[in-house]
Amino acid sequence: MKSRIILNAFDMNCPTHQAAGTWRHPDNQAWRYKDLEYWTDLAKLLERGYFDSLFMADVVGVYDNYRGSAEVSLADADQVPVNDPAIQVSAMAAVTKHLGFGVTCSLTYEKPYLLARRYSTLDHLTKGRVAWNVVTSYLYSAAINLGLDKPVPHDERYNLADEFLDVTYKLWEGSWEDDAVIRDRERGIFTDGAKVHPIRHKGQYYSVPGIHLCEPSPQRTPVIFQAGASGRGREFAAKHAEGIFIQPGTVEQAREVTDDLAKRAMQFGRTRDKFKIFTLLTVITAETDEAAQKKYEGYLSYSSGEGMLSLFSGWTGVDFSKYDPDQPLEAVNNDNSIRALLELLVKIDPNRRWTPRDIIKHRSIGGLGPVLVGGPKKIADELERWVDEGGIDGFNLAYAITPGTFEDFIEHVVPELQRRGRVRTAYEGNTLRENLLDSDSPRVDDTHPAARYRGAYTGAESVADSTGPSPFASLIAAE
Amino acid sequence: MKSRIILNAFDMNCPTHQAAGTWRHPDNQAWRYKDLEYWTDLAKLLERGYFDSLFMADVVGVYDNYRGSAEVSLADADQVPVNDPAIQVSAMAAVTKHLGFGVTCSLTYEKPYLLARRYSTLDHLTKGRVAWNVVTSYLYSAAINLGLDKPVPHDERYNLADEFLDVTYKLWEGSWEDDAVIRDRERGIFTDGAKVHPIRHKGQYYSVPGIHLCEPSPQRTPVIFQAGASGRGREFAAKHAEGIFIQPGTVEQAREVTDDLAKRAMQFGRTRDKFKIFTLLTVITAETDEAAQKKYEGYLSYSSGEGMLSLFSGWTGVDFSKYDPDQPLEAVNNDNSIRALLELLVKIDPNRRWTPRDIIKHRSIGGLGPVLVGGPKKIADELERWVDEGGIDGFNLAYAITPGTFEDFIEHVVPELQRRGRVRTAYEGNTLRENLLDSDSPRVDDTHPAARYRGAYTGAESVADSTGPSPFASLIAAE
Repeated sequence: MKSRIILNAFDMNCPTHQAAGTWRHPDNQAWRYKDLEYWTDLAKLLERGYFDSLFMADVVGVYDNYRGSAEVSLADADQVPVNDPAIQVSAMAAVTKHLGFGVTCSLTYEKPYLLARRYSTLDHLTKGRVAWNVVTSYLYSAAINLGLDKPVPHDERYNLADEFLDVTYKLWEGSWEDDAVIRDRERGIFTDGAKVHPIRHKGQYYSVPGIHLCEPSPQRTPVIFQAGASGRGREFAAKHAEGIFIQPGTVEQAREVTDDLAKRAMQFGRTRDKFKIFTLLTVITAETDEAAQKKYEGYLSYSSGEGMLSLFSGWTGVDFSKYDPDQPLEAVNNDNSIRALLELLVKIDPNRRWTPRDIIKHRSIGGLGPVLVGGPKKIADELERWVDEGGIDGFNLAYAITPGTFEDFIEHVVPELQRRGRVRTAYEGNTLRENLLDSDSPRVDDTHPAARYRGAYTGAESVADSTGPSPFASLIAAE
Repeated sequence: MKSRIILNAFDMNCPTHQAAGTWRHPDNQAWRYKDLEYWTDLAKLLERGYFDSLFMADVVGVYDNYRGSAEVSLADADQVPVNDPAIQVSAMAAVTKHLGFGVTCSLTYEKPYLLARRYSTLDHLTKGRVAWNVVTSYLYSAAINLGLDKPVPHDERYNLADEFLDVTYKLWEGSWEDDAVIRDRERGIFTDGAKVHPIRHKGQYYSVPGIHLCEPSPQRTPVIFQAGASGRGREFAAKHAEGIFIQPGTVEQAREVTDDLAKRAMQFGRTRDKFKIFTLLTVITAETDEAAQKKYEGYLSYSSGEGMLSLFSGWTGVDFSKYDPDQPLEAVNNDNSIRALLELLVKIDPNRRWTPRDIIKHRSIGGLGPVLVGGPKKIADELERWVDEGGIDGFNLAYAITPGTFEDFIEHVVPELQRRGRVRTAYEGNTLRENLLDSDSPRVDDTHPAARYRGAYTGAESVADSTGPSPFASLIAAE
């Protein structure tokens, strides 16, 4: 049986996400990111197209290293201005029944106690349709505005992240037993304190002794999304993530990464069916290959060269303006980030000696992911090849214009994939986790690291233990 | 001309807000706080009743000092479990046009850079209908779970709050000029970097050198709400707040507080029309006085004595279980909190020698605010007296049951007050600030401390200043 292809839409609460300059396209509605209607319309559209989730990216700083300032990012609206990604979720949830919402939050600048409450609230109000895209921040411009002198070093970021997740898992899975909330009107007991436990966490980075503030939500732990490219990042994803976002340039590279992730996950006792892998992709489609190509060229005509380099400068930490536009990047070998980027670019097109000018010319749509251009059959063939040969489970679909890119995909490609039995024609589960993992439980599976705290405190210290005597015994009910 | 009476609904993202035990009442829907429909229905109801705003309270800890644990709070669901108050706002905004949303957030545990973004996002998505209820946290149980050994001392909390607000004002009012976002498709300029300014804040508690992440929202600075009872709290409110929430026991005490606030505000150059004062109140009403009284008694029969003492213990920091239920509180004079509470209780009823048991008997509905019980005429008379003699502008209406208490008020009292010309029959302004302050601008007035940063950076350092030369001049538009 052929596997189901999972669809996620990749968006961000800002006027330009991945395709610099296309905000100028007359059909692009991305600048309406401040309007609730933009988001509620998008959510309804994606649910009509049987997407599993809308994945909201985020940054909490600006891309300001290209030419030494944020001027180009601002001019091109490259991920700035950027609003909070969690606020519009409830409005979207109110107009949909099945679509999931992946909400990015950088734990680097958060307190686990409050973040756990925010995601529990999201999970309650969406009735179990939320994922947390776990990010550790990389932007210098974020760090200095958030009380740090400089970003936390990369490896330490992951140690801190491991402990952060551990704290939230304890709160989400362990603190409240399933039947803690009994809402017993007769006995006047809403929550049974004997079934609510302080987590007594005291670690290297965090101290959280208390109980979770929220009662158990449908999924308890939100679905964990993660996008880690480095070795340490992949290890983290293999351990924690239920949705992993990768950015391979080719099907072959996807195979390498998915095999590697499967192997790493095995070390944590997790089998390949316990997480889904998505590759970043931009699809430009229309009725025919020719019409799609023409549409693609139309988008390209709006792209912004310097805006694109500003995005690439932000992602890599390299100021590309310092290099000769026509000097091959392989000659600039004094920088790890450049080498990593070059590796990626070469995989996208091994026959090109990539220069900064090439990035502008050939990466203006799609960012760090491949771009597919074609009619329904060509696209569907290609998507199936990515899944069947690349070992991935689905796609994280970026837009050239929004909602146009998603509308085109849903109009032309989804029906073709449905005919081939590769895209769902109904949502079977109630929660995001059930739908995404084809699971019959909304909760994390037993091999997930959060599961170890399921029932872990049952019988241990509870809120009821330390309660003193009541001088008002006769008044426990109303007098 | 008689002044307009402003109505706010007081709610919280939890099963019990002020009236312990009434979650057991069959008509009380408060336990549905996890359902978006509860919130969207409530928002629509309040807008039909011409309320100015829904005010969402919050705590980030639990009330655990009564009898030495949170067991009673949990049993009675007294403000625990408690979800994040900001998440459901966008769903409510999507089904209303005018209602404002006051969202509580304790700055004690937040980073100003991220909080500023969250409220800008709320303001954008609600089209200017958001207020920030500024809170500095008092709960020990919050502090220890959020990385502190103990709560920040009271006066230091306000120094920190002053600087926190200063940082957010700089971001909201100063960082982006009004015409920074030009969205000029021809020239390819979304935001003009010359009109975006780093705030370069370096203070005692916070360092925020960068630019705000968000473009200017309709109100820029959200409407500032504050509830400060202490001298330092009142000074803070008089300086910053546009909506001040007070908890006097009587009309006479309200007069004292409003006069004091007006005097304090004058020292900051602010006249009385620049902020509105609301008193906490619970109104139980029906067609007739008798029917209202019967309803009230029905609610009382569901109240929880120990739950109420648990709430009072949380609010005052005093474990009431340590005292003889029948010992007058005036005999327990070794504690400042008790004395402050006693002062309040005595003002509510000077003829009573208040004991813990009296608190249970007479404060089970209404918490720290007065309770009015009666038919439309009696209630309207009383509300007018509070406003006309007490010098307040309106009410922060708590519920005994929800949405029942609000439904009754809107069905019986609002029409009566409209007939008397005291409650609005239409929303005149577009934003919360315009409606609340009867102002013709959505922005803070010139005497507000945020106003000093309006245009403050124009002509000063901008994002464009430091931009280096472009090696891609020919590529600034698309190639």
